[in-house]
Amino acid sequence: MSVSPGAKALPLPTVGILGGGQLGRMIATAAAEMGFCSHIFCQRGDEPATQVATTTTIAPWDDHSALLAFAQACDVVTLEFENIPLATLRFLEEHAVVAPGSAVLNIAQHRGREKRACANAGIETAAFIVVDSPQALAHAVATFGHEVVIKTTRFGYDGKGQVRVREGDAFDALNVWETLLGERASLSGSQPGDPPEHVDPGDGPVIVEQCVPFSCEISVIAARSTSGAVAVFPPALNHHEEGILRTSTVPAGIHPQLEEKAIEIGRTLVAAFDVVGLLAVELFVVGDANSPTATLLVNEVAPRPHNSGHWSQDGSATSQFTQLVRAVADLPLGCPLATSPTTMINLIGADIESLDSHWNTPNAAVHVYGKAQARPGRKMGHVNVRHLSPSQ
Amino acid sequence: MSVSPGAKALPLPTVGILGGGQLGRMIATAAAEMGFCSHIFCQRGDEPATQVATTTTIAPWDDHSALLAFAQACDVVTLEFENIPLATLRFLEEHAVVAPGSAVLNIAQHRGREKRACANAGIETAAFIVVDSPQALAHAVATFGHEVVIKTTRFGYDGKGQVRVREGDAFDALNVWETLLGERASLSGSQPGDPPEHVDPGDGPVIVEQCVPFSCEISVIAARSTSGAVAVFPPALNHHEEGILRTSTVPAGIHPQLEEKAIEIGRTLVAAFDVVGLLAVELFVVGDANSPTATLLVNEVAPRPHNSGHWSQDGSATSQFTQLVRAVADLPLGCPLATSPTTMINLIGADIESLDSHWNTPNAAVHVYGKAQARPGRKMGHVNVRHLSPSQ
Repeated sequence: MSVSPGAKALPLPTVGILGGGQLGRMIATAAAEMGFCSHIFCQRGDEPATQVATTTTIAPWDDHSALLAFAQACDVVTLEFENIPLATLRFLEEHAVVAPGSAVLNIAQHRGREKRACANAGIETAAFIVVDSPQALAHAVATFGHEVVIKTTRFGYDGKGQVRVREGDAFDALNVWETLLGERASLSGSQPGDPPEHVDPGDGPVIVEQCVPFSCEISVIAARSTSGAVAVFPPALNHHEEGILRTSTVPAGIHPQLEEKAIEIGRTLVAAFDVVGLLAVELFVVGDANSPTATLLVNEVAPRPHNSGHWSQDGSATSQFTQLVRAVADLPLGCPLATSPTTMINLIGADIESLDSHWNTPNAAVHVYGKAQARPGRKMGHVNVRHLSPSQ
Repeated sequence: MSVSPGAKALPLPTVGILGGGQLGRMIATAAAEMGFCSHIFCQRGDEPATQVATTTTIAPWDDHSALLAFAQACDVVTLEFENIPLATLRFLEEHAVVAPGSAVLNIAQHRGREKRACANAGIETAAFIVVDSPQALAHAVATFGHEVVIKTTRFGYDGKGQVRVREGDAFDALNVWETLLGERASLSGSQPGDPPEHVDPGDGPVIVEQCVPFSCEISVIAARSTSGAVAVFPPALNHHEEGILRTSTVPAGIHPQLEEKAIEIGRTLVAAFDVVGLLAVELFVVGDANSPTATLLVNEVAPRPHNSGHWSQDGSATSQFTQLVRAVADLPLGCPLATSPTTMINLIGADIESLDSHWNTPNAAVHVYGKAQARPGRKMGHVNVRHLSPSQ
């Protein structure tokens, strides 16, 4: 490109994003707002992020020549979901700055490693046992007694890949084991004949978690930049139905000291896991949420933007997507404080067909992901409803 | 595309945007947020909007086969600048929904027609005379006496294509005439040998505007949807340097009755001009801005998003770009009210090289347009600084 007289050529930095879903789409538009080009690496041309990306590479996760060209085209590479194969991450790390990196993903891809890492950082989770056989599963369930949740250690999301065993339920360990391993294979996208997954000792395929009688679930999103600066969004109160997040509300309406405690947990874990980028932390509140003595237990973590942080797009001085780009580009982190009470409402499946009431709600920002098919249970969009005071 | 069982195929509506500059870029990302694909029609592959568009067509404004394919690919076509050739708009209107349409552009492309249309709608402007010869120019300047601003009736922006004649200045009508006609040709991009522009009687190439001793300049952005719903953003107080907008601040800090009057002018003109989309209206405040008796005079209008409305991206419940997409897609208009006092600061030319203080300002949202060259006077980005109260 020629440069006109008096003009100065500028770099147009590029953020690479692994994954083409709605989170990748929203990272890409946040990056664009700050002047970055975006380059999506994903598996299918109809994924939502491809509609807004500057450049898209469609290639398998093990296509080294495509990965190399992608790495060379990007100033920094981040990701929108944690189940990118570790080998892909490790290959990219040889050729590009990748944030978060493979060490973080190695923890976040496995519920057992994740919980042990929390314990090592001094942060409590519910009691759990990772098991590697139907016999061990039966033993673990007997140890805790009912009620437990049995999950695949990998690939589960939105309530998929888990079985709850309540007081008085019949429990057939072999049947549950086989069901979960089948779901695990299906969620991972693996095919019969694929080489067996490498499993470290203690990193079995199934985890038994003791159910805790929690009063509510909250989550915080912690950001950490290349330079080590940390900023944590205030906690959101999450409401699930059938295992799928339906709403997140800020402020969470819990005791201020619990809010502080939740933020402190985010601050501790994002540093302990050495994340550059975001760490979403889901927490159970055990006991009275209006009392400072309630306990917070980590449910799960994710090193990426999180559905429960979408409120920040319209209810915070900085959105989680903007914050992620600032973090991985080593810019100063933005102020994470809430600017108005906000409720995020997910649009699931057929919800997307009846948006009229949302378009008509004053102070509602409607976000639609551009997916070509509305399947039951599929996240199609969300609405952020701000509760502005009359003085505003 | 195949549809999975239980799934419903959805349309992915496309907003076409004429022009590939920063306004097109911000329309495209706002459209993406609401689930629209974007299709940019522009002249060069390095224009900023191409970095975020789903699809880009690079073709001349008179390439009918490219225009036809573009029209057929779009559910609605809008524009990011008013100097699209009318013939282009009229051709597109035969094949697509275009908003705003050629009738609006015909008014907005000519300062004389614009001011007469305001007068017809009962809205005051400064006194003006459109002239079609150096002799008529000399006569008009003599009529008003100094001080006047002499402008090309078309293509001027950011102080380009205008000459101010102050009390006591020497004034050479022929010289000014030739200078302005040269600038006009240069700003229009026309080439020697191009066919002469069609000029209606009274629509001469130069306009003489009487300078009014205004105390400040404000602007409002009015939106009007296909269905005729109207919503007007509160006025911003604008500060210019060397003819270029430097800052816009909301609230404008003028008397509340003047705010109301400005909003009412926006409401009147957007309907009188039959705009579907946005109409930005720049207004001079003549007299004490803290008095309800001050006079508002229209300076100029533009049927598109406007630099003085960028504060709304971070300081309003709805951004002007979101509002434009809602208007042309015939969705209910969003609430235009300010959510916090906000100052928009333009990043001009070399400003873009020293962003550190902006990245570090709490509650500042940094917008960068992705232009590959920083030329003096070129708009490179902007920053919205929100003034959040401690209670927030």
